[in-house]
Amino acid sequence: MGTREQLVDSTRELLWERGYVGTSPKAIQQRAGAGQGSMYHHFAGKRELALAAIERSADELLAAADELCAPGTALERVTAYLRREREVLKGCPVGRLTQDPDIVADPQLRAPVDESLARLRARLTEVLDEGRAAGELPAVLDTAALAATVVAVLQGGYVLARAAGAPEPFDQAVSGVLALLAAHAH
Amino acid sequence: MGTREQLVDSTRELLWERGYVGTSPKAIQQRAGAGQGSMYHHFAGKRELALAAIERSADELLAAADELCAPGTALERVTAYLRREREVLKGCPVGRLTQDPDIVADPQLRAPVDESLARLRARLTEVLDEGRAAGELPAVLDTAALAATVVAVLQGGYVLARAAGAPEPFDQAVSGVLALLAAHAH
Repeated sequence: MGTREQLVDSTRELLWERGYVGTSPKAIQQRAGAGQGSMYHHFAGKRELALAAIERSADELLAAADELCAPGTALERVTAYLRREREVLKGCPVGRLTQDPDIVADPQLRAPVDESLARLRARLTEVLDEGRAAGELPAVLDTAALAATVVAVLQGGYVLARAAGAPEPFDQAVSGVLALLAAHAH
Repeated sequence: MGTREQLVDSTRELLWERGYVGTSPKAIQQRAGAGQGSMYHHFAGKRELALAAIERSADELLAAADELCAPGTALERVTAYLRREREVLKGCPVGRLTQDPDIVADPQLRAPVDESLARLRARLTEVLDEGRAAGELPAVLDTAALAATVVAVLQGGYVLARAAGAPEPFDQAVSGVLALLAAHAH
């Protein structure tokens, strides 16, 4: 991995673990094993590094949603996505950024967070639409609302797990929404 | 409001807005209009202030769940709780603390966060149990899982709204889970 990549990767980890306000340029340099001169050769500063790191996290969030493109019924695909292996106690590297006031207040830093979560919801809406068209889900259900519910369950499940210091509440929240969806599927 | 109360209140606001790592003793003093001597007269330091502030936020989270004790069917009570007026773009003052690594890593600071969310889930489980006993919800549903789903939808709804810079995704996520629950109610 080149120095530039190493810097972006270290920033991504630190934003995930400590957030924007808790991440100093010095901490990024130390984790990346790069000097100050090297960092400022590649990036104008912490904000530009954060932007590259957030864009990478956003890309990975969407890449992870590939389970939704696998074969199977809509419910099977949503189930596979919700049940995929996750570092539950670390939380979501994208969702956690919404608690960073400096990121939310900065349109450029917030954009990849907003766009990736919006695209994830749009992709889930398509899957649920296919399920509805196939008669798998009732026509009366608002698939865009359901997609927001599914993504919210993931993001909120992380919150509950981190509060509890254990993954169980995340698993329960996922089980609950899947049971509700499954009861509708026919 | 006395100085002690003012200090706790200011800490609570700053933790909500900026998190633990982003809140300095100086910022607390400035917001509270209190001097350094006054702050250290009442509290040993930032951590003790944060503990008092987190306990107050946790109490308010549970007090707000009083909608769940109102008369009505289980679904009506869950709906009233989910639809109550909220500062959606500010997020949850308790849930947001789970993104603070210094709070999650400190058992004493995490305890009120964990306990209040666990008690909220327990209260929702009771309401759903009553609905199940009354034949309003199918006996097959796992009410503890559903309660976790409902709280996760709220917490994740805040994440989606803050990402979007608009309350709509929160409202969609709530509508989606209520539609799923309503379709079961009979």
